[in-house]
Amino acid sequence: MRTRRAARRGAVFLAVRGGLARMSDEVDVPEDHPRYQSLLTRHRIEAGVEKGITSTQGLIAEGRGEAFDYLLGEETIPSADRAARAAAAHFLLAEHPVISVNGNVAALVPGEVVELAEATDADIEVNLFGRTEERVRAIAAHLREYGASEVKGLTADARIPGLSHERAKVDRDGIYDADVVLVPLEDGDRAEALGEMGKTEVVIDLNPLSRSARVATVPIIDNILRALPNVARHARDLSGSPRETLTEIVEGFDREGALDAAERRLREGATRESE
Amino acid sequence: MRTRRAARRGAVFLAVRGGLARMSDEVDVPEDHPRYQSLLTRHRIEAGVEKGITSTQGLIAEGRGEAFDYLLGEETIPSADRAARAAAAHFLLAEHPVISVNGNVAALVPGEVVELAEATDADIEVNLFGRTEERVRAIAAHLREYGASEVKGLTADARIPGLSHERAKVDRDGIYDADVVLVPLEDGDRAEALGEMGKTEVVIDLNPLSRSARVATVPIIDNILRALPNVARHARDLSGSPRETLTEIVEGFDREGALDAAERRLREGATRESE
Repeated sequence: MRTRRAARRGAVFLAVRGGLARMSDEVDVPEDHPRYQSLLTRHRIEAGVEKGITSTQGLIAEGRGEAFDYLLGEETIPSADRAARAAAAHFLLAEHPVISVNGNVAALVPGEVVELAEATDADIEVNLFGRTEERVRAIAAHLREYGASEVKGLTADARIPGLSHERAKVDRDGIYDADVVLVPLEDGDRAEALGEMGKTEVVIDLNPLSRSARVATVPIIDNILRALPNVARHARDLSGSPRETLTEIVEGFDREGALDAAERRLREGATRESE
Repeated sequence: MRTRRAARRGAVFLAVRGGLARMSDEVDVPEDHPRYQSLLTRHRIEAGVEKGITSTQGLIAEGRGEAFDYLLGEETIPSADRAARAAAAHFLLAEHPVISVNGNVAALVPGEVVELAEATDADIEVNLFGRTEERVRAIAAHLREYGASEVKGLTADARIPGLSHERAKVDRDGIYDADVVLVPLEDGDRAEALGEMGKTEVVIDLNPLSRSARVATVPIIDNILRALPNVARHARDLSGSPRETLTEIVEGFDREGALDAAERRLREGATRESE
């Protein structure tokens, strides 16, 4: 959205200044640049395509997300921040938390996934809508490049009941065994099936009306680029807290209120201008 | 949006019934199937990727469009139909109307582009955001397969003032010379630059807040799969009309009203359920 020309101009200009970006190996733009997130997203998605991580359907899903993020105002709204805090509390209380990773998640936030797994002692498992062994391997390798010590999803020796064969495949000692699962980005069917297995589900989705968001224990209506580091930040912040504090946060979270607030923002946000 | 599983099930079921689709070489689903348009879009986009017509950015743009179309209710709203009629009148009044075609347009509506060009005696010119000779040639060949007799955009012997080199390239006897240009899908910069050249612009865009839509003489806030055949239909309907009738339609079109109506619909649509 907005002006791509302005974004490119900014990139060229700021590349000359150089050195300001946190991730200068990626995009030469400082984090406070208004198009930083958009440029970073675009760069990572393109890299994901080159590496065979991002699928055609993943690219279209990214576009759908961009439209909703634009309507939300491209920022973490207060209710999404409260959801991120509740998600962090769930992860810290969990026996066995798992972060489910698909192609877009791997392309967009590989380092952030590893960071959250470390902050919460969670497993990372690759789980794809259009599963191929090749793509699971490419994604696992990509996550290891970003520091993941173990990546599950290759054993695929258990099944989520109620899903078609390929999409049902999970690791027995991973998602199948998990009590809390973070399911970022869309797959309404799987989100529902995991819920029916009695798992606590944290969903990150930009559409508050999506089935994934509606079946989640904790729906975080936010861009994954902002939400994942935010959950990790809350987890580090809460890491020394007693269980009763964490339980209070979990029980105090108002999921209906969060969905409603995001829906209101979606409607109000539609007044801004863009390309 | 909605359930992809349901869509796939429908496709399988209906493929067994077979033979009902108008375009049975494409998708074996009858036109009145609720997911017909979605399945057709997906099929054409995938085919566009295979043919080297659709770009990575085109796929993301397609996703953005899907989200906005979902919010609009996936139908041609009355103000969009009035815009399509005004667009048809502009095309019939024009000295030299040109349809600008990018990768997504070529992938999604190649036959419809040819049909509109024939109904209005318009030129077809390929014009890409990420221009490469190879992609221009692939798109021109694709359009010729669908019956286009002449496709401009390969000479590229003129420039639109105010745009960077590659994106500024147009044919002198095509877009550069045109008085009315149809610019489907997003490129806010080019839409603005063409407007500054004094051209009448018809823009087809699903985001009523986009810069393209906001600078257009006639913004058609609709899915290109519905809008392009609709403009052609209005053009055939109006083809025998006297110039004063066409001028009345053109002058009676309320562009601000059309943008406002679409924006209202977009926000209302945000309350519907989906995946």
